[in-house]
This record gives sequence, structure tokens and C-alpha cells, in this order.
Amino acid sequence: MQIGVIGLGRMGGNIARRLMKAGHHCVVFDTNPDAREALAKDGATAVSSLGAMVDALTGKPRAIWVMLPAGRITEETVAHLGELLKPDDIIIDGGNSYYKDDIRRAKELSEKHIRYVDCGTSGGIWGIDRGYCMMIGGPKDAVDHLDPIFSALAPGTGDIPQTPGRDEGDSRAERGYIHAGPSGAGHFVKMIHNGIEYGLMQAYAEGFDILRNKNSADLPPEERFDLNLPDIAEVWRRGSVISSWLLDLGAAALTKDPQLQQFSGFVQDSGEGRWTIEAAIEEAVPVEVLASALFARFHSRQEHTFAEKVLSAMRFGFGGHTEGSGPVGLSRTESAKGEE
Amino acid sequence: MQIGVIGLGRMGGNIARRLMKAGHHCVVFDTNPDAREALAKDGATAVSSLGAMVDALTGKPRAIWVMLPAGRITEETVAHLGELLKPDDIIIDGGNSYYKDDIRRAKELSEKHIRYVDCGTSGGIWGIDRGYCMMIGGPKDAVDHLDPIFSALAPGTGDIPQTPGRDEGDSRAERGYIHAGPSGAGHFVKMIHNGIEYGLMQAYAEGFDILRNKNSADLPPEERFDLNLPDIAEVWRRGSVISSWLLDLGAAALTKDPQLQQFSGFVQDSGEGRWTIEAAIEEAVPVEVLASALFARFHSRQEHTFAEKVLSAMRFGFGGHTEGSGPVGLSRTESAKGEE
Amino acid sequence: MQIGVIGLGRMGGNIARRLMKAGHHCVVFDTNPDAREALAKDGATAVSSLGAMVDALTGKPRAIWVMLPAGRITEETVAHLGELLKPDDIIIDGGNSYYKDDIRRAKELSEKHIRYVDCGTSGGIWGIDRGYCMMIGGPKDAVDHLDPIFSALAPGTGDIPQTPGRDEGDSRAERGYIHAGPSGAGHFVKMIHNGIEYGLMQAYAEGFDILRNKNSADLPPEERFDLNLPDIAEVWRRGSVISSWLLDLGAAALTKDPQLQQFSGFVQDSGEGRWTIEAAIEEAVPVEVLASALFARFHSRQEHTFAEKVLSAMRFGFGGHTEGSGPVGLSRTESAKGEE
Amino acid sequence: MQIGVIGLGRMGGNIARRLMKAGHHCVVFDTNPDAREALAKDGATAVSSLGAMVDALTGKPRAIWVMLPAGRITEETVAHLGELLKPDDIIIDGGNSYYKDDIRRAKELSEKHIRYVDCGTSGGIWGIDRGYCMMIGGPKDAVDHLDPIFSALAPGTGDIPQTPGRDEGDSRAERGYIHAGPSGAGHFVKMIHNGIEYGLMQAYAEGFDILRNKNSADLPPEERFDLNLPDIAEVWRRGSVISSWLLDLGAAALTKDPQLQQFSGFVQDSGEGRWTIEAAIEEAVPVEVLASALFARFHSRQEHTFAEKVLSAMRFGFGGHTEGSGPVGLSRTESAKGEE
Repeated sequence: MQIGVIGLGRMGGNIARRLMKAGHHCVVFDTNPDAREALAKDGATAVSSLGAMVDALTGKPRAIWVMLPAGRITEETVAHLGELLKPDDIIIDGGNSYYKDDIRRAKELSEKHIRYVDCGTSGGIWGIDRGYCMMIGGPKDAVDHLDPIFSALAPGTGDIPQTPGRDEGDSRAERGYIHAGPSGAGHFVKMIHNGIEYGLMQAYAEGFDILRNKNSADLPPEERFDLNLPDIAEVWRRGSVISSWLLDLGAAALTKDPQLQQFSGFVQDSGEGRWTIEAAIEEAVPVEVLASALFARFHSRQEHTFAEKVLSAMRFGFGGHTEGSGPVGLSRTESAKGEE
Repeated sequence: MQIGVIGLGRMGGNIARRLMKAGHHCVVFDTNPDAREALAKDGATAVSSLGAMVDALTGKPRAIWVMLPAGRITEETVAHLGELLKPDDIIIDGGNSYYKDDIRRAKELSEKHIRYVDCGTSGGIWGIDRGYCMMIGGPKDAVDHLDPIFSALAPGTGDIPQTPGRDEGDSRAERGYIHAGPSGAGHFVKMIHNGIEYGLMQAYAEGFDILRNKNSADLPPEERFDLNLPDIAEVWRRGSVISSWLLDLGAAALTKDPQLQQFSGFVQDSGEGRWTIEAAIEEAVPVEVLASALFARFHSRQEHTFAEKVLSAMRFGFGGHTEGSGPVGLSRTESAKGEE
Repeated sequence: MQIGVIGLGRMGGNIARRLMKAGHHCVVFDTNPDAREALAKDGATAVSSLGAMVDALTGKPRAIWVMLPAGRITEETVAHLGELLKPDDIIIDGGNSYYKDDIRRAKELSEKHIRYVDCGTSGGIWGIDRGYCMMIGGPKDAVDHLDPIFSALAPGTGDIPQTPGRDEGDSRAERGYIHAGPSGAGHFVKMIHNGIEYGLMQAYAEGFDILRNKNSADLPPEERFDLNLPDIAEVWRRGSVISSWLLDLGAAALTKDPQLQQFSGFVQDSGEGRWTIEAAIEEAVPVEVLASALFARFHSRQEHTFAEKVLSAMRFGFGGHTEGSGPVGLSRTESAKGEE
Repeated sequence: MQIGVIGLGRMGGNIARRLMKAGHHCVVFDTNPDAREALAKDGATAVSSLGAMVDALTGKPRAIWVMLPAGRITEETVAHLGELLKPDDIIIDGGNSYYKDDIRRAKELSEKHIRYVDCGTSGGIWGIDRGYCMMIGGPKDAVDHLDPIFSALAPGTGDIPQTPGRDEGDSRAERGYIHAGPSGAGHFVKMIHNGIEYGLMQAYAEGFDILRNKNSADLPPEERFDLNLPDIAEVWRRGSVISSWLLDLGAAALTKDPQLQQFSGFVQDSGEGRWTIEAAIEEAVPVEVLASALFARFHSRQEHTFAEKVLSAMRFGFGGHTEGSGPVGLSRTESAKGEE
């Protein structure tokens, strides 16, 4: 079928390519002409404005996949499309919007009988070949109408073993996409997916940190081990309880550079990790691990927090402690023997 | 080759079976005669004492795999074997011993020229078919001598894709086992493996908890979703960033019973999770996620902590608050509007 | 001066009494006639409606202190007063409103030239004698106008030693109240105050929990201590680094009942603890301790989380573990020796 | 009475001075001759070796207070004294030894009928005037014999209000010292004291961090506040629920320098915080707050953890994300809008 794709970055461009490979026809737009041309070479119809896209989409209802950074730009694009499109047309937000924005937008657009579908899309740069895992929210008729699109983007069953007892369930889940519920439900599930992702990554990261520091000069010599992290990551991929795709990626990175020297250790976070904690708080669900994983990223972006200075100031207040300053002070693992 | 196996529970029995299937000959012992007989039927030579096992092992050096609960019983068994065995013989502790016990035992046994190998073994009840992931510590000559054993127990390369750049590394890691370092290194790596496992499990668990409570009556009606957890777990197995073997298990459990009603929520922990935190503290490595995952298990085994009563007592002290008691008090998600 | 007080619960009633004791005249209202009468006996002018209060306040500008639970009831009362009052009149919200609500309300009311002051008020049931600590936001002219009110409610300098170097600062802080900034700043500072309070309480609570369980039968006998918690709490009040008013309250509670048997361990939380975490997330400030303190309260209100059941289900999946169920299963402190 | 004091640093020197001021006679030793001479000027009998100290103590039984950094130096000093002293003599370890070391030492010394008392001592540099809070473990006869010493060092009741219901308890707690239990109990209680201290400090520190960053350029302008931290700290000392001695110290530091620029933010930790977590783990007591407070200090001493690099490496693996590096990359509070 015919579909518009707005936003031709790493994700959007590859989504269009995977759709075209499956026989769908893509009308594409990006503010960057180079991105448009690249897709045109791969067979897409490139247009130079939203209006031109709406005109170029000849099938009815029109369907337009918006794949832009969450926030202002997605908001404005959806609003603009809301003015250009006609009743029954469908807007799919495939980015990482906040699910409460979806609920609001769907309500606003429904007054014009335009259908809004929120689609959380996981897969990263690998999705073009591996397929995208999609979590979809919105009206059933729109989701059903788009089934050929979702089916083409999804990984399909592949060689992943069937879960025992799945015979009676919705087969879409086994092919890599679900209709999670009404508007917002798709991005909500994707948001929790990313929250979990943060927790998983931090668990591996802390574990490798302990392994690496097992050779610290501050430990008793007989308890030091100089461990081979690439081999450890590799062996855990093989029959262990903690094998996973994230571990596969970690093993690849450690194999390439066991010290990970190319990485500064400055780690970004996107909105989903934050919203996950807020959702948990709204539900009164305790989420120590997911919250700690988020805070670890906040830590990574600061040399020293003000909180740390407050600690030092209090210690100085009661103990007259003068804190070291790294290299010339206390070693990283040595604990002070001061009086408190 | 010939090997003794002591401890024929879920793990030990299956290890013996997988070894025999690969053509090795097992002399087996367990204090439970039924367990011995079951293995004898499968082709093992069953003996009724440690002494009889040592006599029955005719190859030199002897190799005995101890697969018992960590702690006193393993300690006593290794000590007893130390009295029965001869120079060059090998004891493998395949259980979950504390790595500092390994260091001590290896040193004690080396005075008698008995070789001690610590082998962390992951795979659970699935290992008999899927193979066991093994992390091994101890003297190189002993580990090399046992290579046919480890090779038979390991999963092998199977259909797991090769990590880019692995060509030059130790191929054993790709077949599912590693010689991690000197005595204790095997169990140390396995310990961290389990610490990570706790963190991964807790991350998934918290995520599913948020999903499930998204239908809470305390949320605004337009923000409630009645989510299908089995479908969500299933779709995440397909092309998402958080696919893993633990998620496969979670999907299977949720498919069987979306409410998980057969589980009380009372969760045990084994020593490894605790020792992981202690190791991190010794190295001054911050491990918020791994520690929180451990504490979550401690929480699960208490109806109310004394800490909670202290909180209530202080609140009563400054605010005169009388706390509810569940059903008749504040609902789980409602926050109090009291003065503090 | 003359002031209206709406809401005569534990906090509002005592605030009116402390004001009258200082010579101010209070016009009071509560939906509960008994509460009104009680204050009338103490010298207040009781009225039976908001309209009657506005009429009874003869001085200009009028000032009305709203002391109601945060949320809908405060919202509606402020809105109602906005209709009844005249330009220059002042509404003080002395409760625990969310500071973003203050910003919105202040803006709305300013269109009618009504002045809105947000005042975070700490002191609990002790405030009537001990005085109230107040954190105030809003327009300077309104805060200055109300200075006699704030001054009367505040503790004053009392016998608390002066902080070295304070001579040049705002003396109001030393008397127990501050003008923290524009609208919302008062409740924002009070919100963080309560967030800190949660963290402090949880730190003490965890410490006493460790002390109490030092007599556990699961510890080696020579490492068990049967500690006297009331004596420990008492001695820490005397010259130790951790002396505080919260500890004073804890010591009183433990002295009355060392087992705290009257408390179920079911602990409520009010909005401030939750909003504190959200504020930190908005600022990307890592707050592991404050978040953990909040989650501990969430835990206290559930017998078992769904997360715990997910853990059990996964453990069953890979290890065939059947979890105990408390009394008949694993003891609280015993760790399982299972295979993972 | 007569007492020996070994170790004349900030704590030991002041302890001797406070004892002498109360009329006791101190024989003092330190490896630093200047420290000895300073005390001699204040009236102590300075000696130049442990042997000389034992000779100089003429009363029977002798009592020697060891006030040295925990660890090797305390261990060796106690062992040396064990060789020099006679039956009934008393060694007091007033430092921060690990309570399991106390249990061992007390047992070893008891074979020579030398009595060992472990005394956790809180008060820091203020103790000389404010008095020391002491938590004491060991044999009752020794603790009773030393009562004049403990009584002189303790703060006494002062003007701290009596806890309601204390009339019948042990009056020593109200004067600032307790006999907590058998050997090790004193240092155990002091250890938990310090663990709580870490939690309290971190709670304040996180709160001030949120306050300070409320002026971040990444927040919406109408939600920014430029808060006066010294005033806020000051007002919280006055009638609020979170007033404490640590807050007094924080207020003093912020008054002196609201930016705390003299402090690097590099925060040490002593053994007690670490041992507190290990004790909790042994008892299966969940201690999220105390553990997080410890980990925050670990964080403060590293520019970037290896864990953070692992996170970056995984993100690069699935998303091709290149992380910024602080100033030139993502701002501290901006969240990335990347695809995951």
C-alpha cells in the first residue's frame, strides 16, 4: 500500500526502505534535501513539503508515518498534518512521544475525524534487517487498516522458538507487533520497554565494573584477578541465564576494545526513562532499580554534584576533614580512617 | 574419560547424564539411594560412599565433580576428599561456593598436591539439553586435563551468531566455557553473573508491575489501560532491544497465567547476590541497581519491616497521623493529604 | 491584625489559636460546626460560609489563610474566594499544594488584582507551642503586609544558637520564616523539605531495623546482640552527630514501646515526596536516597508486589525453584542454596 | 582516676583534655613528640613508649584508652598492650574498629584475664566542649569500673529535654553513654550510627542539590527559582521537622559560602558505612537508603565509572549514538531525543 513517511533520519529512512522492500510505496519528506534524494534513489517518491505529501498520497484514506524527535517538532508536524488531512486519514506517530500527548492529540484530531495512531518502535539501526518491534495504540479500525504496514516492518516469527501455550493468542505478538490498546497505550508500553532497557543495561554495566576492578591495587594481592572481560561477555552468551541481545552488543564492544577507551562515560537519557519513573510514582509502584538506572545516567553527566559538596561541607563541619581531590588525595578504593 | 560426580540433585544428576551422553563414564554418589539408582539405570556406576568412589575411579589422575549446596556440606565433602585422594588428583567444585573459600581450599589442598578447580555452572534445569555455561578457576594443567569434560557439558557454538572480531580469541568462550583465572576466579565470575541476573530480573519485574497497575482505579479514567501482559512479553521477544532468555521465561509464565496467581511473591536469594554487593563494596564500585535488586528480595520475605514501624512511629510523633492498615485504610495508590 | 482562617483541623485550628494568643483577631470557618464552635470559645469570630467571612473581615486589604488538604478542596476554595474578594485582598494557601498549581493560581488571580501567597508550613501538632517554620512565595508587597502574621506564627529565635556569620542575612530566617521567592517558591521549598524528611526518616528506620535484627537466630551465636533500642535512641540524642528532632520523636516512641507493636507498618505518603522526585528528574539531579525513601513507603502498603511474582515466575522458569511462603518456607534471613 | 591515652590526634588529644578538665590524670603517648608535648603542657604525663606508659600507670587495675585509626595500627597496639599488661587491666578501644575484630580481641585477651572494652565515640572536633556520645561494649565489671571516665567524657543531660517516660530507664543514656552489650556491641552500635549518618547527610545533600538546580536554564522560565540556600537552611533549623545538628553544620557552611566552592565534591568514606551494609545483608534487612548513601560517596571519587562506558558502548551498539562529552555535548539536564 501507499504511505507517507516524514523524517528520514536513521530510523525513518530505514523504515521507508524496509517498507519499499516489502512492496509498499513510500512518499517521503525531510527538511534535509540530501535525505530526501537518498530515499528517492532507493525508489521513494520524494516531496518537498507536507502539503506536497498530502497531494501525492492518492489512495484513500491517506496514511502518514511521522518519525521525528519527540517534543516540539513532532507536535508541530502533527498539528500541521491535522490541518491538511481529511476525515478518515491516519497519522502514525512512530517516534517516542509522551503517551499523555498522544491521548490529547488523538482527542483533538478525532474532532476532525482524523485518526491518530501512536506506535512505539524498537529496533535501532539494526531494524532495517532484523525488523522492528512495534507497540501500537489507537482506534482498532485504523490499526487494522495499517496491518500490511506493521506486518512488513515487523521481524516476523523468524527462528525464535514459540512460547509454549501461545497457540490461542494474538498471532501479531509472535510476528513482532501488538495493538496494545487505545490512544497512548502504544507509546506507554514502549516507554516501559525503554525503562526496563535502562535497568538491564545498568545491571550489566555494574557487573562488568566489579569484574574490571577486581584487579585493583587496593585489594589483598591473593584476592585480585585480572579478568578477561571480552571472554566473560562471550561465555555468558552461551547457555547462561543472562544471555540477551544487549549482552551480544556488550560482547561485541568489549571484543573490539576491552577498555572501551573510545567512550567518555558521558551517557544521555531520553524522555522514556524519566516518564517511566513518573508513571510508577503515579501508580505507587516501587521501582528502585529503574530509578537507580536513570540516576546513574544523571551522575554520568556531571563531574561533581552539588550534593557531593554538601556532604564534604558537613564532614568538614563535624570532623574537620579535608577531602582529597583524586590523584593527590585518597585513592578511589581506599576508605578513610577518619573520626566521625 | 572417567569422572566421579557427587550430589545427584537437579543439577548434578543432569550433569552426569549429559557427560554420559557424550561418552564419558560417571561414577556417582548421593546420600539418597534413589538418586543413585536413577543414575545407575542411565548407565552410571553408583557407589555408596566417598571411599568407594575413590576406589572405583581407576584412571589417573582421578577427577571428582562435587555438585552440592554451597556451605557446610560442600566444605565437609571437599575436606573428606582431601583425605582420600592422592597427589595430582582433581576436585571440581561445580556448585556456588564463595570464591574466598575456593582460595583457601585450593591452598590447603595444594599442600597435598591435590588440585582444586572451582567451576561456576549456569544453566539450571535446562542445561541437560541446552548445555551449561561454565566459568572455571584453578591451575592451568588441571583445567586443561578436564577439557573433554567441560567441552561435553558446554553448549557448543550452536546457532548463536559469532561476535564480530572473535576470530583471534580463546575459542572456549565461544563454545560456552572459560578458564577465568586462578583459584576462586571461576566462582567469582559466576557470582557476578548471578548478581547481574538479580538486576535483570528486577528490571523486568518492575516494568511488568507498572504495566499491570496501569489499570488502577486510582488513576484518571482516561489514563488507564488494561494491558495484555502475555502479548507484551511476547512482542518484546521479537526484534526489541530487551529480548533475552529471561524474557523468554517471563513470557512463558505470563502466557500460562497472566496473573501469576500460583506464585506467592515470596522470593529467595542465594549467596551470590549478597557476595556481589560485598565485592563491590570492597572495590568501592557503586552498584545501586544490583543492591536494590537484592533488597527487593529481602522485602519480599517480610510482611512488614521494623523500619516501616519506625516510620509510622515518627509520623505519629510529629503529625498525630494514625496509619491505615490496608483494606480499611488508605488505598494502595492514594497518597495521604496529611500535614507534615 | 485581622485575618480569616479556613480549615480548622489539627493545623488550621492551632494556627488560629497561636495567632490569637499573639493578639491577632481571627475570623474562622470550617464545614464542621463543632470545629467552628471550639475556636469561637477560644476567642475567634466563627462564620458559617465563605461569603460571611469576607463580610466579617472589615480591615482592608482582607487576608484569608486557607489551611485545607491539598488538591480539589483547596482548589475550589481558592477559586471561590477569587470570586468573593476585591483587588488588593490576599489569599494565603498554607497547605501542601503543588507549586505548579500555585504558579497557575497566582497568575489567574492577578488578573483580578487579588494577591496569592503560597506558604509551606512545617511544625505538625507541636507548632502551636513550638511555632511554625514557614517558607513563603508570592509578591513582596503581600508578604511584607503579612509580616505580623508570619512573625507571630514563627518560633522566633528562641534558644537555638545563631549560625556563625548570619549577622548580615535576612533576620526572618532566624526567626523561622522566609520569603523564598515568587509564587510557588514557598511550596517548592516546603516540598523539598518533606522530600528530605522522608530520606531522614528512612535512614533512621533502616538503622533501627539492623539493630533490632542483630539478635536474629540466623546469625552465628557469638555475633548476636540483644540491643536496647530505647537506650540507643536516647544516647544518640546526646552529643552524637545524628541528633535531631526526628530522633527525639523516635526515642519517645521506642521508650513507650520498644517493639512499636501499635504500628502496623503501613506508611502513607503525601504528594510532596512524589513531587520531589519529579522535580529532581526535571532537573536531572540524581536522588537515589530520596527516591528510595518514597519507594519504601509504597512497599509498606502492599503485601506482595506483582514484581515479586514475576521474579518467582522467572526463577521457576530456569531453576524449577518452588518458593516458600514465609513461616513454612525459608526463614526471613536464610538464603537459599539453590542453583541458578 | 588515672588513665593512659594512646593516640593524640584531633580525637585522642581532646579526650585527654576533657578528662583532665574533669580532674582525671592522663598518661599520654603518641609517636609524634609534638603531640605529646602539647598534652604535657596541658597537664598530662607524656611518655615515649607503650612500655613507659604501663610503668607510669600506678593505679590498679590499669586502664588505657587507645584512640588510633582503625585497622593495622590499632590491631598492633592492642596486641602489644596485651603483652605488657597484667590480669584485670583494661584496654579501651575508643576508635572505629570493626566489631568482629573486637569480639576476637576480647576473646584472645580474656585468656590472659585482660579486659577489653570497645567504645564507639561520636562527637568529632566539637566533643571537647560538647561532650562525646559513647556506645560501649564489653564486660560489665570493666565498664562499671570506668564509669567516672565515661561520665566525664559524656555531655551530661545539659538542656536537652527529657524523653517522656525515661524515668525508669538507665540514666547513663540520658547523660550520653550506654553499655550496649558484650564485646563488639559498642562498636556495632557506633557503626550503625555512622551508617545512619551517611543516609541523613545524603538526604540533605540531595535536597539542596534540587534547590540549587531549580534555576537551571533547561527549565521553563516560569518554573525557575533562584533560591537562597543559606536562608533556607537557616529557616529549617527553626521549628521544622527536619531540624538537626547536621543541618546546623550545613547552614553554617552555606552561610559562609553559598556555592561551597572550597569543596571539590570528592567525599571519603570510612569503614563503618561499608560494614553497616554488610551487617544488613547478613541480617537480610533491606537498606536501600543507607546503601545508596554509601554508593554516592563511591561515585564522588571517580570522574567516570567503567559502568558508564559500558552503557555508552551498548547504546552505540543498538542506536549508533555518539555520546557528547559535557560542555560540547548534551547539556546536563537536556535529555536526548534519540531513538532506542
